[in-house]
Order: sequence, then structure tokens, then C-alpha cells
Amino acid sequence: MTEFRGRDIVSIADFSRQELDYILKTTDGIEDLAKRKPDLIRGKTCAILFFEPSTRTRLSFQAAVQRLGGFVLDMSEPRTSSIEKGENLTDTIRVVQNYADVIVLRHPLEGSARLAAEVADVPIINAGSGAEEHPTQAMLDLYTIMREMGSIDGLKVALLGDLRYGRTVHSLASALSLYDVKLYLVSPETLRMRREFVELARQRIEVQEFESLEPILKDIDVLYVTRIQKERFADPAEYAKLKGYYKITAETVRKMKPNAIIMHPLPKVDEVAPEVDLMPQARYFKQVYYGLLTRMALLALVLGAL
Amino acid sequence: MTEFRGRDIVSIADFSRQELDYILKTTDGIEDLAKRKPDLIRGKTCAILFFEPSTRTRLSFQAAVQRLGGFVLDMSEPRTSSIEKGENLTDTIRVVQNYADVIVLRHPLEGSARLAAEVADVPIINAGSGAEEHPTQAMLDLYTIMREMGSIDGLKVALLGDLRYGRTVHSLASALSLYDVKLYLVSPETLRMRREFVELARQRIEVQEFESLEPILKDIDVLYVTRIQKERFADPAEYAKLKGYYKITAETVRKMKPNAIIMHPLPKVDEVAPEVDLMPQARYFKQVYYGLLTRMALLALVLGAL
Amino acid sequence: MTEFRGRDIVSIADFSRQELDYILKTTDGIEDLAKRKPDLIRGKTCAILFFEPSTRTRLSFQAAVQRLGGFVLDMSEPRTSSIEKGENLTDTIRVVQNYADVIVLRHPLEGSARLAAEVADVPIINAGSGAEEHPTQAMLDLYTIMREMGSIDGLKVALLGDLRYGRTVHSLASALSLYDVKLYLVSPETLRMRREFVELARQRIEVQEFESLEPILKDIDVLYVTRIQKERFADPAEYAKLKGYYKITAETVRKMKPNAIIMHPLPKVDEVAPEVDLMPQARYFKQVYYGLLTRMALLALVLGAL
Repeated sequence: MTEFRGRDIVSIADFSRQELDYILKTTDGIEDLAKRKPDLIRGKTCAILFFEPSTRTRLSFQAAVQRLGGFVLDMSEPRTSSIEKGENLTDTIRVVQNYADVIVLRHPLEGSARLAAEVADVPIINAGSGAEEHPTQAMLDLYTIMREMGSIDGLKVALLGDLRYGRTVHSLASALSLYDVKLYLVSPETLRMRREFVELARQRIEVQEFESLEPILKDIDVLYVTRIQKERFADPAEYAKLKGYYKITAETVRKMKPNAIIMHPLPKVDEVAPEVDLMPQARYFKQVYYGLLTRMALLALVLGAL
Repeated sequence: MTEFRGRDIVSIADFSRQELDYILKTTDGIEDLAKRKPDLIRGKTCAILFFEPSTRTRLSFQAAVQRLGGFVLDMSEPRTSSIEKGENLTDTIRVVQNYADVIVLRHPLEGSARLAAEVADVPIINAGSGAEEHPTQAMLDLYTIMREMGSIDGLKVALLGDLRYGRTVHSLASALSLYDVKLYLVSPETLRMRREFVELARQRIEVQEFESLEPILKDIDVLYVTRIQKERFADPAEYAKLKGYYKITAETVRKMKPNAIIMHPLPKVDEVAPEVDLMPQARYFKQVYYGLLTRMALLALVLGAL
Repeated sequence: MTEFRGRDIVSIADFSRQELDYILKTTDGIEDLAKRKPDLIRGKTCAILFFEPSTRTRLSFQAAVQRLGGFVLDMSEPRTSSIEKGENLTDTIRVVQNYADVIVLRHPLEGSARLAAEVADVPIINAGSGAEEHPTQAMLDLYTIMREMGSIDGLKVALLGDLRYGRTVHSLASALSLYDVKLYLVSPETLRMRREFVELARQRIEVQEFESLEPILKDIDVLYVTRIQKERFADPAEYAKLKGYYKITAETVRKMKPNAIIMHPLPKVDEVAPEVDLMPQARYFKQVYYGLLTRMALLALVLGAL
């Protein structure tokens, strides 16, 4: 297997199933390891370089670094930074790597993480680039499924909501296609996953598309809900109609298998009714914790601490 | 006495005199203790979750966590965070507690800290909610009085300025009413403390209200000054008049008892003349340091480190 | 020599050549020392108090503090801080020193760092004040020259670009005048260095002014490039013309001595062509790393850790 020390985490497509399994296994052991060795990455600095807001992912990486005993350099204010002065990403990376042993990058442009990885002497972890890549989210999603369901192989997984603009679902669909799963894509016509992602997944696994959850609700093991954003619709009435249609309520959940699980990349707004939060199927807050563990594992791996 | 480990600090009204005394005593010892044991909360993470700007309180908590050897997760940019995406406070708390062992919360809405405490599995420390609660400020105010005057009982304490909109004075009046003090409330008619707070205090201690400091200036032991904000007045002329009327100058101080003290929650603007800063009665910068100690004590207590 | 413990770093003009040499020597040893003793300033807190945006300098100081084992208190959001409420700098300093053992200050007003140093009981490090002072930048520039060229004495140094408004070049010219260098100031007529700075340097060393690099390009050992900002010109056509005229390309570099070096305070925009970044003369990214070392040395010195 490829050595992980010094490796960039740019796209989920760069990883084989064997490598993903190794990451999942490492994640499974990192909690205990960090308790026994709280200074696993002592003296190492992780720069968090976010050109887009993201409380969730930022906090998750910060907490991961701290729990491994490393330092955080937070550079998350594009509005008050040199970037405003017109500096290009290449220069920013060449500067920041003087301060850091690993750089976690979020950037609105497609390809930015790949470019950064080419320029940087230190490993780059892509924390979201453009609309297509969010590899650490996909890894934590895999880990959540594995940990909560015991295994990923053999499951029926539905992705619900905005499958067109959400980078989370693109990376996740790609990751899932390395496992023996049936993938259901459930979205309004206008928010269907782009053809190239669907075709890519179909080369490896069975993928079916639906406009409603109804036909598959009783069968699925994992329901992955995403938010439908108002901004995607020219017609507010159209948005209002769809929003209600894709909302998960207690009634929806009661129709699911008792041991099925509901995931969500968060933040959620009203696509999941509050009463669902307290039902045993809801695992999205656990998912947050598993994200912390996944990022700890990734940081420890690329920094060569394992 | 109630155990402090795991306890929420939501409202000053939740604490008995015995408990406040215990906090004051703990605060008194925390400086030495932290010097001897700089890793008192080693491995613990404190999330600072501020939905309103507050340099002072934020820095105070950050410094307190660091001096106890803990980690800080700072989430203080509501404008660039998930909150903008419409996430509710309940979800935010359920997410953040995955990363933190204690959450320090500041929020503009009344009742927000109570709600957070109900939702959270980790202790919540209220760092200001709505216009009414700021319990850690009241505790540090008590500690300042105790440390600078030797005791709180038997003192005459005047609160001056905007007693209507300042959350600091509400929590402080409530705390002081557990001690044997005479409380003087000095404010313009339009900025008098709300009746319910005055009545509450009157059930326990003597409370008198004034529109001017003059009648009591010679008698008081503690003068607690607060800022009168321009925004509270429709008529700028009215503001200008009042502002000058409640300004503390060297002349004011010279009329006070020589061992009286002047406190202020800071930041101050021009309600205290700069020459007062250098007079021995001015204790507001010391008060800042006592705030650091108080927050160290509270964090150590709720995290069960003492 | 003056003791460095507790000393303010306000203006480069406060330092003798002997003192600067001592700082350079300390910087030279700090990397190894920090590796052997990663907790050189353990338990000490450094407040980073920036009233102007500056990713670069802020990160540099943060990283420096962490590599010495100290705590960072970051107070870098003037827009969301007490400063907005009208608090003056004096009060802010008196508050922040309760939390910190050293304060790193950046402020847009001339004289602000000097004022802060007078008020504060803890050392102040000026990280840029007004248009004239940026002493730690000058020190890291000196260190870069010394480390890359072996010595500063005997060199021919050209400062290029906006010499009127850039605080970097003022502090650097002042620092260089303590060494045996020939100083060439190359700028458009409208952006010439202010007379008082030129006269000051001329009292000690040879200073020549040019409007073009051409006459000296073959002779210089160090080319220090700065950005020409569009905002300085009323006439965009004038700006466009000058910008191109002062741009460093591969062709420019090929005319220089093979062992000459190019420096830049960064961020750069388009005053240096991207192809230059990869030429051996370009040292501006190394300069960033030397800045980290210089700030580590300064922090260790003023905190008395050496």
C-alpha cells in the first residue's frame, strides 16, 4: 500500500478501496491511541487556511489537531487577509508552508486543492474545493456507516436532496462506489446529480435515480439527507413545494427499517423535523464526532505519526 | 453544598450565598494552584461560542483556559459561520459538544443559555445572554469587592449609569442581595433598573434609588460605574446633558472616602475622566485580572479539576 | 549592552548596531535551541493585538510563540471588538496586559506603539505602526541578507518601488544605515522616499537615488522589491505605465550578478513575474521563514528566556 506520510488528501478518487479501508481502521483505533499518547504530533503545526466560511469543518480540524497534541494556525478570514490584496493561491501556500507541517485548505474554486498540493512541500488536506470535492467528509461518512452498521458492503444507501450542487454527495458517491452497495439517488429533476458522476459510479455499482423516497423508503439501510438551498430556485413557489416534499418527519422515519440510520452533513435547516433528532435512527450528531476521529486519523497518517 | 462538577453556570439566581462564597474562596486560591499545577485541565477543551462581539470576555476566558493547561476552540464569528445558514442554537450546541468538554456561550437572546444548558451534555457557562444575565461578571465583581475591601458584608455599594439595559448590573444587584450590603441605584429617570429586579433585591436588602450621586457620594464604599449609551436616547441633547451629569472626574473621587473603590465592567468611553485611571480608588483594571482568576476557578470547578 | 528582558521593540532607531548584531546572532541560534528546548517560554502568553489586517505578520508571530511553547491570545478583529465601542488604545493596553506577558501590536496610527509602550507594564513589540515603523520586518530583512549573503557589510542594496508609503522600506533603510552598505533608492519621482529618511541615512552611508534600475542592475547584491499600489495614483494611466516599468522579470534577473538575491516583504501581486519565483535569486519565501526565526528570537529575548 502507498505510504501515507507526506501524502496529499485532494480527491476521494485518489484512494483505492484498500487505502480507504486502512483509513477506516486507523480511525477506529485513534481514540484509544490519542488517550494513551496525547502528544502524538507534538511540535507539529497545522495551518487551517479557509477561503470560505465553515464553522463545522474548521472546528473539527482544530479539535483534531489539539487532541493529537499539535499546534493550530488559524487563517480563516479571507476578508481581512492578504488575499484581498490580490495575492494568488500559489504564493499564499508558499508562505504558509514556512509556518506549518500540514495545510488544511478550503477554497471555492475547482482545482484549487490540486494546485496547492503541486506547489506545497508539505501535505495538503482538501477540506472542500469547488462544488465537487470534499474527501474528508466522504471518509467520515464512510466511517459513520461502518461504525454504526458494522460494515459498508451489502447496504442500500440513499442520497437525498440537492445532489447537483453539494460537494459532499459527489465525494460520497465516488467513495461508496468502491464498496458493494446499492446507491439510490433521490432528488428533484432540477437537482439531479451531474451525469458524469452518475456514470462513474455506475461503472462499479448499481445506481438508481428517483424523484421521491417513497418507492425505496422501506428498503434502505442508510438515508443521507442534504439541504435544498433556496438560492438554487428562480421561482420561490417551486422551492417551497420541493422543500416540503423532501422533508424528513417522524412519519417518514417510522416507515423505515428499525435499524436504518439517517445521516446529514450539517448544518441542517428544516429538511429534518426536530422530532427526528431524538429518534434512534438519527445519527448526524454522532457523525460529527466520527468526523473528529477521522480527521485525527488523517492528520496522524500524513504527518507520519503512526 | 451542590457539587460543581458538570454544573451549568446560567444565572446568578441559581446560586446560594454559600455557593458564591465557595466560588470566591476557590478564586482566591486558583492563582497559586495554577502556578503549582499548570496542567489542571490538561486534555480538556473549552469551546468559546460567541454570537455577539466581546473582546474582553472572550479574551478573559481564552486566557483562563490556557493558564489551566486546556485547549481553546474559538467559534466567535457569527457572520462567517453556520448560524448564517439558518442553523438553530440547539443544533449548534449538539454539534459543538462533540468537540468540547465545556461550552462558554454568549448570545443576544434572553433564555438562550438556559436552552443550551438543557440541550447540552457538557456544562454551559453563560458569558452573557439577552439583557439580563451575565453571571460570571457578577461573580468577578463580587470577588473584586471581597479582595479589595476584605469583605462584602457591611458595605455600601452604588451602581451608577444605565441600570435599565446593562446586563452586568442586573446580575450584580442579584448577587449583592445575598450579602449584607446597602445598595444605591443611581441613574437618570429613564434608565432606572426595571421594577422586578429592584423588588427582588428589596426582599433581601435595603435598596435606595437616586438620580444623582451627590447625596451618597461621601458614604459609599464601592462605586460601580457603567456606560450610558447614546443609542438609548431619541434626543441627542438629552443624552449630552445626562452624559456629563454622570461623569466621574478627579473632583468626584476626591469627595469619596479615601478607601472607597471605583469599578467598571469596561470598556469605558468617557464616563470616567482619564485622570481618574491613575487615582488609587480606580480598580477597574485590577478587576480585569480578577475576572481572569474567577473564570479560571469556574472552569476548574465545572470540569471537576478541583 | 542593554538588557533585552522586558524591552519594548518600538522603532528600529532605538537599536544600536551592536544590539542588532546581537539579535541577528540570537536568531541564528534559535532554531536549534527551540528544537532542544521546545518549551523555552512555557506558561507565557503573547497577545496579538492587530488593528489592521495582516495575515502574514500575524501568522508569523503566532507560529513563533507556539514554537517556543507559549500561548497565543489572538485579538485581531477590530470590527467586532471593544474598539468599535470607542475604547481608547490606552485602556485596551491596560486591559490586555492582565492576560499577557508580551503584546504584539499593529496599529494604523503613527506613534501608537510608542504610546502603548509607555502605558504597558509588559513589553510591546511593534508589528507595524503608521506608515513609518515596522522594526521586526527590518530585523528579519537584515537577517535574511546576513544569512543568504554571509555578511551585510560591503554590500550594495537597492530598494525598489514605492519608497514613500511603505513602512517596510523606512525601517529597513534606517537599519541598513548602521552597516557598511551602499544604498540605492529606485522609485518613480512621485514615490521617492521622504527627505527626512533619506537625509538620516546619508549621515551614515552612501545613498543614491534613481528612477530606474538599469544603471545599477549589474552591480547590486540585494534587490529589495516592494509593491506599487494603484490607490496612490489619481491617474490610472500613470499607474499602469509605472507598474510595468518596475516589474521584475526573468530578463531583469538574468542581467543581475549570479549570486545577487531578490527580496520582497510580501504579499506581491504582479511586480515580480511568476517565472522569477523559481530562479535561485528569489529568496522572498525563504525570507518568510527567516521572519519566523527572527520573531522567535525577539520573543525569547524580551521575555527573558535566553
